[in-house]
Amino acid sequence: MSEPLKIAIAGLGTVGAGLITLLNANADAITARCGRELRITAVSARDRTKDRGIDLSGLEWYDDAAKLAVEADADIIVEMIGGSEGIALDTCMNALKAGRSVVTANKALVAHHGMEMARIAEENNVSVLFEAAVAGGIPIIKSLREGLAGNSVSRISGILNGTSNYIMTRMRNESLDFESVLKDAQDLGYAEVDPSFDIDGVDAAHKLSILASLAFGAQINFDDVYIEGIREVSLMDVQFADELGYRIKLLGIAQRTENGIEQRVHPCMVPVASAIANIEYAINAVEVECDFASTIVHAGPGAGAGPTASAVMADIMDIARDNIVPLFGVPCDKLDAIPTVHMDEHHGEYYVRLMVVDRSGVFAEIATILQNHDVSMESVLQRGRAPGEPVPLVMVLHETREADMKAAIKEISALDSVDGDPHMIRIELLHG
Amino acid sequence: MSEPLKIAIAGLGTVGAGLITLLNANADAITARCGRELRITAVSARDRTKDRGIDLSGLEWYDDAAKLAVEADADIIVEMIGGSEGIALDTCMNALKAGRSVVTANKALVAHHGMEMARIAEENNVSVLFEAAVAGGIPIIKSLREGLAGNSVSRISGILNGTSNYIMTRMRNESLDFESVLKDAQDLGYAEVDPSFDIDGVDAAHKLSILASLAFGAQINFDDVYIEGIREVSLMDVQFADELGYRIKLLGIAQRTENGIEQRVHPCMVPVASAIANIEYAINAVEVECDFASTIVHAGPGAGAGPTASAVMADIMDIARDNIVPLFGVPCDKLDAIPTVHMDEHHGEYYVRLMVVDRSGVFAEIATILQNHDVSMESVLQRGRAPGEPVPLVMVLHETREADMKAAIKEISALDSVDGDPHMIRIELLHG
Repeated sequence: MSEPLKIAIAGLGTVGAGLITLLNANADAITARCGRELRITAVSARDRTKDRGIDLSGLEWYDDAAKLAVEADADIIVEMIGGSEGIALDTCMNALKAGRSVVTANKALVAHHGMEMARIAEENNVSVLFEAAVAGGIPIIKSLREGLAGNSVSRISGILNGTSNYIMTRMRNESLDFESVLKDAQDLGYAEVDPSFDIDGVDAAHKLSILASLAFGAQINFDDVYIEGIREVSLMDVQFADELGYRIKLLGIAQRTENGIEQRVHPCMVPVASAIANIEYAINAVEVECDFASTIVHAGPGAGAGPTASAVMADIMDIARDNIVPLFGVPCDKLDAIPTVHMDEHHGEYYVRLMVVDRSGVFAEIATILQNHDVSMESVLQRGRAPGEPVPLVMVLHETREADMKAAIKEISALDSVDGDPHMIRIELLHG
Repeated sequence: MSEPLKIAIAGLGTVGAGLITLLNANADAITARCGRELRITAVSARDRTKDRGIDLSGLEWYDDAAKLAVEADADIIVEMIGGSEGIALDTCMNALKAGRSVVTANKALVAHHGMEMARIAEENNVSVLFEAAVAGGIPIIKSLREGLAGNSVSRISGILNGTSNYIMTRMRNESLDFESVLKDAQDLGYAEVDPSFDIDGVDAAHKLSILASLAFGAQINFDDVYIEGIREVSLMDVQFADELGYRIKLLGIAQRTENGIEQRVHPCMVPVASAIANIEYAINAVEVECDFASTIVHAGPGAGAGPTASAVMADIMDIARDNIVPLFGVPCDKLDAIPTVHMDEHHGEYYVRLMVVDRSGVFAEIATILQNHDVSMESVLQRGRAPGEPVPLVMVLHETREADMKAAIKEISALDSVDGDPHMIRIELLHG
C-alpha cells in the first residue's frame, strides 16, 4: 500500500461539501480501488463558522484559497470556488506552479484559461483534471480522452445545460410559455436568480468548447463558439415542432465540415425518435460520432452535488492511481488551432415561423423571395383562418446556407403582410 | 518520445483485421495521444493465404497463436480468436506467464476464466484488458472501473445482446413472429447460423457476469447467473406489452438486494418512456445506478468490426500510456464472493398471459389461486369473445416473490379451462 494521497479542497459550497460526504461514505472501497488512502487534509472557504453538516475537525483551515494552494499539506488541490477569473484562477495557477495537480469542476475557468493551465501544468509536470466541468457525473471527458481515443471524431453534440432542458421539457409537457416556466424554475431552485448563463447558452458554450478541444485534438476556442439561447423559443414553436415530428432542445454541437470546425450552441429541432429528443428535464446527454465506434451516447444528471462529487472523485482517483493523460489528450504543442467556420457558412435545414396577414398573394410573395435566395421549401403549414388578421405560417426549408436563409428572412420580414419578427430554428438530423 | 509499443495479434477474423485497419487509419493521432508509436509486429491465424484486404507484409507470421503469445517480438498480445477454452485460453495464459499484458474481446473467456487470469496477471505484474468484451465500442468497462469508481453501485442493467434486441425490435415494428424474424436475421447476417448463444441469453450472461464483478467489486460468478432467452416471447405478448405501455427487451440485470446480489438475464417489460425501451435494433445500452452519480446510461453499437476495434485500441492505448488498473478494479484478494440470491427469492411485478376458455367462472378460479399464493392483481385485460374457445387473458401482478408467482402459475396452468402453458414476463421499473 502506497502513501496516502493528501487533498486540499478550496471552496466548501454544496459541491465541495458533497465531495467530503462521498469520501466519508465510500472510503474503504475507494482505498481498495486506489491502492492507497485518500485523505482530506485542508480546506478553505469564506466563512469558517457556517454549518455545512460535515465534520471539519482536524483539517487545516485557510481563509485564502490562493494561499491554501501553495501552503497546505497536500499533494493535490481541488478547486470548487467557481468563476473564470479572480480567486479560482489564482488558486489553480498557484497550485500548478507549486507542482501540485489540480482537480476542478469549473467549466468557465477551463473554457477561458484551459490552454494556459495546460502549458503551466506541463512545465511543472503536473496535471489538471476537469471531468466534473462537463455533464456532471457522466464520464464523458474520460470517454473522449481514453475510451474512444482510437477514433477520429467527426461530431460531438449534446444537451449540456440542465436548466434549459428543464425549461424546454416543461414548456412542452405542460403547454406553458417560457417566462412562466422560468419563474417557476427559479422558485424551485432549478434556475438561478440570474439565469442568463444557463438560458442564454453561455454555460453550454463553455462546456462545448472543452468537448470540442478533446474531440478534435485542438486548442480550446471559446471565443469562436456561436451562441444563441432559448429566450426566443415560444410555446407556439414548441407545439409546431410536435406537429412536425420534432422536439426543441438547446444543443451544443461541434462538427468537422469541409471548411473547418463548427462550434455552435442554439435551439434545435431534433427528430422525435432520436435519443437526444427523449432526454428530459435536467438530464444531460452527449452524443459522439466517430469513425470506428460509430455513434456513442452518454446520458445522466448534468449537475448537483452528488454527480459533481462523483466526477471530481474519479479525477482524484486517477491521480491516486497515477493514471495521467495530458489535459486535452495530447501535449500542448500537438494541439492545432481550430479552423472556425463562420455561422454564415453553416448548412442545414431550417424551421421558420412567420405571423402573416391572412390574405391572398402573401404566400406567393414569400415563395418568390425564398427562390431568389436559392432556398427551397420542403413543407409548409398554415394554422387557422382569420381574414385580415395575423396567423402563423410555418415553413420547413431544405438544406441551405445560413447566410442565404438569413438574407431571405430579412427580406420576408420587411413585407407589409408579415407581422413581427420571423422565428427561425435550425433542424438537426441526429443519428442516435 | 518513448519506445514503440509492439503488438502481436492472435486471430485475423473481421475484428482482428478491423484493428489493423483502425491503426492504419488513425496512426498519427494515436501516436500523439500515446506519446509513442503503436507497432503491430506479429500475427497469427489459421490460413495464411486468405485475402483479408490488409497488408501483412513485414509482420512475423505464426500458425500457432499459443506460440506467438510467447515467442513473438511483442510487448502485448491481442487475443481475437474467441471461445472460452482451447487455443484462446492457452494464448492468453501463455502470454501472461511470459510477462506480457493481454487485450481481448472475448467475453466467454473472461466470464469463465477471468479470476484465474487476474491472479496470473497479478503474479506476473501484467494486465488483461477487455473493454471490447462488453457492449462493443461503448466504454462501459472504463466507466465502471474509473469514471464512476467513487460510487457504490446498486444496480447495473442493460441491453447486452444486439441480435436479441434486433429480433425484439423487428417483431414489434413489423408485427412478425419470432421464427420469421430470426430466419430473416440469419439470412441478413445479423444472427449466427447457430443463434443459441445470442437468443438463449448466454452471450448476455457472459457480459453481465463481467459487469457485475466490476460494479460490485466481486469475483465473477457466471455459473450463478439466471438465464432465460427470447425464444418463448410471442408476437401476442409483444402486442399486449404495447397496449400496457411497455416494450419487451432482453435485459441483463445485476442488483444488490437485502439478501445478496441478483444476476439475471431474461425478457423484461420496461416502461415505454424509459431510456432502455427506446434502444432499438442492434444497439446496446447499459444503465448504471449508483449512490452519487445517480443513473448513468451509455448506448451505442454493441458489435461489429469497427466498434470492437475501437474498444480494443482504447485498451492498447491505456497500456501504451501506462494507465493500468487491476482487472476488476481492485486486486484479486479484495474481491468478495458474490452472495447470490436464488431467482425464487426475486421480488418484482409480473405480466402473465393465459389462453382461457371463454366461459363464466374461469376468472374466479384464477383469482382464488392467486389469492391463495399471496399474489395480488394490478390489472387484467381480456381480448376478444369467443364462447367456448380459448382467448387471451392478460394479468399484471403487483410486486410479489417469484416462488409464489411460479407456484400460482403452476396451479393455474393445471386448470381445465386454461389452454397450453401460461406466458410469464417480468416487469422491470427502470429509472433512466
